[in-house]
Amino acid sequence: MIMETRGDLRKLVTGIDIGGTNTVIGFADAGGNCLYKTSLGTADYEDPAVFVKDVAGIIVDFFQKNDDTYLIGIGIGAPNGNFYNGSIEFAPNLKWKGVVPLVDLFKKYFNVPVTLTNDANAAAIGEMVYGNAKGMKHFIEFTLGTGVGSGIVVDGKMVYGHDGCAGELGHAIIFPGGRTCGCGRQGCLEAYCSAKGIVTTFLELLENEGRKPDGKITPYAISELASKGDHAAIKTFEFTGEVLGLAISNSVTYTSPEAIFIFGGIANAGELLLKPIRDSFEKNLLGVYKNKIKIMPSGIKENDAAILGAASLIWQNY
Amino acid sequence: MIMETRGDLRKLVTGIDIGGTNTVIGFADAGGNCLYKTSLGTADYEDPAVFVKDVAGIIVDFFQKNDDTYLIGIGIGAPNGNFYNGSIEFAPNLKWKGVVPLVDLFKKYFNVPVTLTNDANAAAIGEMVYGNAKGMKHFIEFTLGTGVGSGIVVDGKMVYGHDGCAGELGHAIIFPGGRTCGCGRQGCLEAYCSAKGIVTTFLELLENEGRKPDGKITPYAISELASKGDHAAIKTFEFTGEVLGLAISNSVTYTSPEAIFIFGGIANAGELLLKPIRDSFEKNLLGVYKNKIKIMPSGIKENDAAILGAASLIWQNY
Repeated sequence: MIMETRGDLRKLVTGIDIGGTNTVIGFADAGGNCLYKTSLGTADYEDPAVFVKDVAGIIVDFFQKNDDTYLIGIGIGAPNGNFYNGSIEFAPNLKWKGVVPLVDLFKKYFNVPVTLTNDANAAAIGEMVYGNAKGMKHFIEFTLGTGVGSGIVVDGKMVYGHDGCAGELGHAIIFPGGRTCGCGRQGCLEAYCSAKGIVTTFLELLENEGRKPDGKITPYAISELASKGDHAAIKTFEFTGEVLGLAISNSVTYTSPEAIFIFGGIANAGELLLKPIRDSFEKNLLGVYKNKIKIMPSGIKENDAAILGAASLIWQNY
Repeated sequence: MIMETRGDLRKLVTGIDIGGTNTVIGFADAGGNCLYKTSLGTADYEDPAVFVKDVAGIIVDFFQKNDDTYLIGIGIGAPNGNFYNGSIEFAPNLKWKGVVPLVDLFKKYFNVPVTLTNDANAAAIGEMVYGNAKGMKHFIEFTLGTGVGSGIVVDGKMVYGHDGCAGELGHAIIFPGGRTCGCGRQGCLEAYCSAKGIVTTFLELLENEGRKPDGKITPYAISELASKGDHAAIKTFEFTGEVLGLAISNSVTYTSPEAIFIFGGIANAGELLLKPIRDSFEKNLLGVYKNKIKIMPSGIKENDAAILGAASLIWQNY
């Protein structure tokens, strides 16, 4: 076997994180070290086959230059990535329409395992392999960013569901008849706790206080204002945490996990967000679950999180 | 092995359904036939050890009288039954307080597998073994009765969670700040869709119409009134179905199941309940799940459902 003759070489996984604007390609070892990282513009490619050809070129180039390493697999995190069939399916934020058989496209260039799933599932698997969920069998990862995603692990395995679309907790309805969500429905968790949802909350609170927004409003800008004592900014994180705590307490009734992890840029607000989450969580939690469940930030290295999540799709089975 | 020398005998599982008032004991074969059924009063026993001794007597008696059969295992469905440790834990509707190690108590009498879980999980496993979920890998069973329970199956396995308490969807909060639930929290699914919740809805609607209740109000009585065209009764089932449809659409975002089953006496209302459930479900469903998921009544024989559910805990692994 080729692998055995390569015993002295360093095994690496190529992790690919496909976003609407950019795609990041990195090379990660079993210990969660990302050796090299580069990117190209996803939106520059009309044809996914050309995109894959160029990414393949980057991968081949890396392994030619680093001949003390070898490729054991390719893990891909992508919006609407379906693990079962290795395709990106009807991704609203990508130029590629319909069903894109991404794994098959990569298989033309590489004779190694290639695995695809959505970003949130990749984050959850990354948490098991590299992060704070090492050794855990039951947990849920919430990813907070442009959208609200989630990955659910039961008995140590990612829950993909009947069709590969499990774990869309950002679109569980928290407030029936509430805020309109990007999906067109009303009252989804995402409508309150995505970057846009948080900004909406802040703007509503500003208006209630008769104030006008000042400069570009982002969750980061709001967290900066909150740390300076801005009333509306503090209330924004309190409300966001309250809604998330409620959503998390509901999620516990499904799979009774050991822990909940909060992943993504917005989670960087730290205790500003985690404290109201925990308060609301404990308030809304069914008695039987009390004092059993940890709520923690993700333990994956922030800068390389998406690459490590994608790479962990391969490392988890290695 | 004893089993091989017993090749000509008929294999039976003892299914035990423990309720707050009565316990039913039955003997079921692999085909879902319940040969004999008897019951005793759960509430008559202060000491669970005496209860188990008497149930064991019934079992021994049956197999002595039916010497062409033999016992291959005992499956038990019980409120707050924990699969992992075989105990009933802090069941509010039983006299036995604290943790009751029921499986261990039975093991003193029988050298066969003894398995315990809660009633809703037993119903879901029964659906896989005997009912409409044969061959399905991903589904959710909602049980409607005194409470609202649920059993979640992922990849063909019951989800028990970290501590054995998974699947409490009756206590997912549907309307934050809504009706007070028996659990002390507000807005749980159970507060709307249990027998008591349905009666509450009917009484509220009667009051809105300036009417007084007539006789004993039960979900069955309300369904009879609805079939005669009573406005408040029809509205009651419409509202109950609307809430259930919303809850089911949320549940789909977790495990993306192939089907949802509705089990229990209240489900006997048939299309009166199923039609508003389906309407609300489709209305509230995230686009990616549309036209993929069946909502069906349970396929387990009504009269023996609880016994067959309990017995299936053994048959599923046989």
